[in-house]
Amino acid sequence: ADSVAKYGGIGVLLRSITTKYDNNPHTGVVFYADKVERVPAVAVGYLDSDFLRQALIEDPELEVNFKLNSKWFPDAQSYNVIGEITGTKYPDEIITVGGHIDSWDLGVGANDDATGCIQSMEVLDLFKRLNIAPQRTIRCVLFINEENGSRGANAYAQFADSSLQKTIAAMEADAGSGSPRDFSVDSDSLTINKIKSWIPVLSETGILRVRKGGSGADVGGIKSAIARIGYGPDGQRYFDYHHSDNDQFSIIHPREFELGSAAMATLIYMIDQEGL
Amino acid sequence: ADSVAKYGGIGVLLRSITTKYDNNPHTGVVFYADKVERVPAVAVGYLDSDFLRQALIEDPELEVNFKLNSKWFPDAQSYNVIGEITGTKYPDEIITVGGHIDSWDLGVGANDDATGCIQSMEVLDLFKRLNIAPQRTIRCVLFINEENGSRGANAYAQFADSSLQKTIAAMEADAGSGSPRDFSVDSDSLTINKIKSWIPVLSETGILRVRKGGSGADVGGIKSAIARIGYGPDGQRYFDYHHSDNDQFSIIHPREFELGSAAMATLIYMIDQEGL
Repeated sequence: ADSVAKYGGIGVLLRSITTKYDNNPHTGVVFYADKVERVPAVAVGYLDSDFLRQALIEDPELEVNFKLNSKWFPDAQSYNVIGEITGTKYPDEIITVGGHIDSWDLGVGANDDATGCIQSMEVLDLFKRLNIAPQRTIRCVLFINEENGSRGANAYAQFADSSLQKTIAAMEADAGSGSPRDFSVDSDSLTINKIKSWIPVLSETGILRVRKGGSGADVGGIKSAIARIGYGPDGQRYFDYHHSDNDQFSIIHPREFELGSAAMATLIYMIDQEGL
Repeated sequence: ADSVAKYGGIGVLLRSITTKYDNNPHTGVVFYADKVERVPAVAVGYLDSDFLRQALIEDPELEVNFKLNSKWFPDAQSYNVIGEITGTKYPDEIITVGGHIDSWDLGVGANDDATGCIQSMEVLDLFKRLNIAPQRTIRCVLFINEENGSRGANAYAQFADSSLQKTIAAMEADAGSGSPRDFSVDSDSLTINKIKSWIPVLSETGILRVRKGGSGADVGGIKSAIARIGYGPDGQRYFDYHHSDNDQFSIIHPREFELGSAAMATLIYMIDQEGL
């Protein structure tokens, strides 16, 4: 949209960026350079895009009208949702785990990111069900406003980085409900190698790799954390659903989803027991 | 069924062994010790099983009648289907890749094992499309009668083991169309470590692990092969479909399926270039 506007275009119709050949457009955000006038931009479903393309080939003089009713509303107060199990030995050492509770208006946000929220809550629930009292405080944070400014993440990061408590690790689940694959870790190489040494344990849940990499929008800003960690499920189907009406609860595979909770809980258990 | 018959039972109704909570029973085989009289055995769908269980709780005197019409037909002649690209440098060194072309009467056998057959054919097709003339002969074998006696596999193994040609590797794809995970290799540790050293290349297609393990029913009997290899896709959904009416083409995810072909072709390319 930025380039279109810069060169005098009056609007953008974009073929929806998804791998699923259906007619469900996705939504999302566009970015503009400061001095560029903003133009309306919409994503169009695959089938409609193909229809439009063919119609344009048959009639190069084709005119398209489109009308958007989206708008910015004034800011409103909202909140992160936080729960924790207080550590028995090091209550001021915090391991956070979370997802984001906002989603787009299309679909119900099952995969992005109800999944991550529930998996994060299940980490704490698994500790309780297995009667494990963690040494460190395990804190579940459901972040608000990830999709449109990350204000919940920013507010939490500011709080955590100025707290007298110490964030040992901050884990995020925001990559869908696929089968567990890996964890990406944003930390120094010694810490990453320590986590890598736990792969034989983690592999019981399907995790075959720990790699250096970004964590995610919700915890990436917590600079004081020793490690920022992203949970990485298999992502081949993620953009079949992402930000579209396909993102419904029916697409969640219960076992793949539950293995994700188990993978996250296992890594957090190791961090709790051994520290970082 | 063997135990039921041994203790005087007159038949078996088994809750279908699947992870999917629907009413599609699976089929399969039962085994009996030599001297045990055979009794009828059927799998019942989840929903019907739950209904029967509840009915039995409410009325312990409940009688159930069931009638099977399955039977053994006389043997009929059938064939493996074989195609190959002849090697330019070592035409008598064979790398086989295959799946099985038979399936059960429920479903259409999309995941078990049309997927493995097409992926095996695609390995050869990828060599052709990329204009790679392999040094060794790449042979695609579609095995008949895997589900009920493995006679096609046995016949091929007998042929391969008595041939003047040398089977370098025999790869099988018979674990569904999920996202690529690993290869299991039945060979000596030196060979397995050589294949492991290619993981950085294989990981481009999603393969994160090479492990010592069985290959599969179709190629496991080729004793003369230096390595017998099983392609291992993610299996969490496999028993949602296995041997049931759920095994339809609609459950194949095109990209996960194609990544499988790419993974198999990549490993076979490495074996062709470097030998084992």
